[in-house]
Amino acid sequence: MRKVMRRELRGEKTRKSILSKTVDIASAEGLNGLTVGRVAKDLNMSKSGLFSHFGSKEELQLSTVEAAREIFEREVIKPARDEEDGLIKLYAFLNAWVSYVEQSVFQGGCFFFAASAEMDDRPGRVRDYIAESTIEWVEILKKQARLAVRLGELKESCDVDLLVFQLHGSVQEANWFFRLHDEKSAFKWARTSVLQSLELRATKTGLEILSTIE
Amino acid sequence: MRKVMRRELRGEKTRKSILSKTVDIASAEGLNGLTVGRVAKDLNMSKSGLFSHFGSKEELQLSTVEAAREIFEREVIKPARDEEDGLIKLYAFLNAWVSYVEQSVFQGGCFFFAASAEMDDRPGRVRDYIAESTIEWVEILKKQARLAVRLGELKESCDVDLLVFQLHGSVQEANWFFRLHDEKSAFKWARTSVLQSLELRATKTGLEILSTIE
Repeated sequence: MRKVMRRELRGEKTRKSILSKTVDIASAEGLNGLTVGRVAKDLNMSKSGLFSHFGSKEELQLSTVEAAREIFEREVIKPARDEEDGLIKLYAFLNAWVSYVEQSVFQGGCFFFAASAEMDDRPGRVRDYIAESTIEWVEILKKQARLAVRLGELKESCDVDLLVFQLHGSVQEANWFFRLHDEKSAFKWARTSVLQSLELRATKTGLEILSTIE
Repeated sequence: MRKVMRRELRGEKTRKSILSKTVDIASAEGLNGLTVGRVAKDLNMSKSGLFSHFGSKEELQLSTVEAAREIFEREVIKPARDEEDGLIKLYAFLNAWVSYVEQSVFQGGCFFFAASAEMDDRPGRVRDYIAESTIEWVEILKKQARLAVRLGELKESCDVDLLVFQLHGSVQEANWFFRLHDEKSAFKWARTSVLQSLELRATKTGLEILSTIE
């Protein structure tokens, strides 16, 4: 293997190991906790070493959000992706999301919940990237809800925006109850709330599908 | 008026004006943004002047949470307190809470939503005070839900914990959607979700009451 390639591979490996640490720090202490000095100290690296990977605090924050997106994709989106389109996949996404909060994939709970609350009043590229990432997730849920309508699993009258507001809100609320109040029943409440919101709009076919889930 | 009393009154006034500023800073930038140095600079005060009111960053944070509680009580709890017990009062509390998010009573959205996400992984007195304050609010909602069951407005089978999880989650989700995505429909979605969750458990009497709200 050529030297340059080896060096690039090593660089990529270091970068990944830095980011696996920063996503945890950020999920617990916030993206603003990610100063180059603090992260270098935590990782026992020199500041200049860290600077060679990420030129600024903002770059470090953006790369951390990107790393968190990859984890979310791997833990929540991918496991459900091969399920059947419509209600089955919609529920699988939400169930995987609840499990990801339950298993504390990130040290500080849902990365994007924490990052949203922290950054919503701080205009800039980091905030934009978080907003873009979270809305993509909302759109993935809406797409499956619309498919469920088209497949005759949810009623034509179903207000998809309102439905997804309820589904998404149920999991965020579970994260809140669990992280702040250590309330483990919150996962059961979230799953039940998701099913109730779906049942309320399900057709007969949809109800049959949901009965196989419960 | 005696000199000492006048001085105390003046001190109290200064203290209040400091806290009216710190609740806004904290709602937007977090309680950890409240360093004595930064707040003193913002208020054009000396550090020692600020220290004479709040001995430490932690005291300043605790007093800020206390001030936020007072605002929440004035804006959300008090306006609904004189309503009739049961469904009417429960809905009035939630509706006032949605309005408070909608009107951005705090510069950075719901103070307690932001503070929860920021502090949930930082053990200590400030975190405890936020957890205690938010659970008190959850208990106020549960109390009215239980009264609604006793008054025959909600069914005996109503799971009050699950219901309040949904009600509380609807307003928190509206705050999230509004602050991060500037989604103004979120308030309508929250009010509709609250009504749906209540209707799902309402008795005939309860449904009649709810129909006067819609």
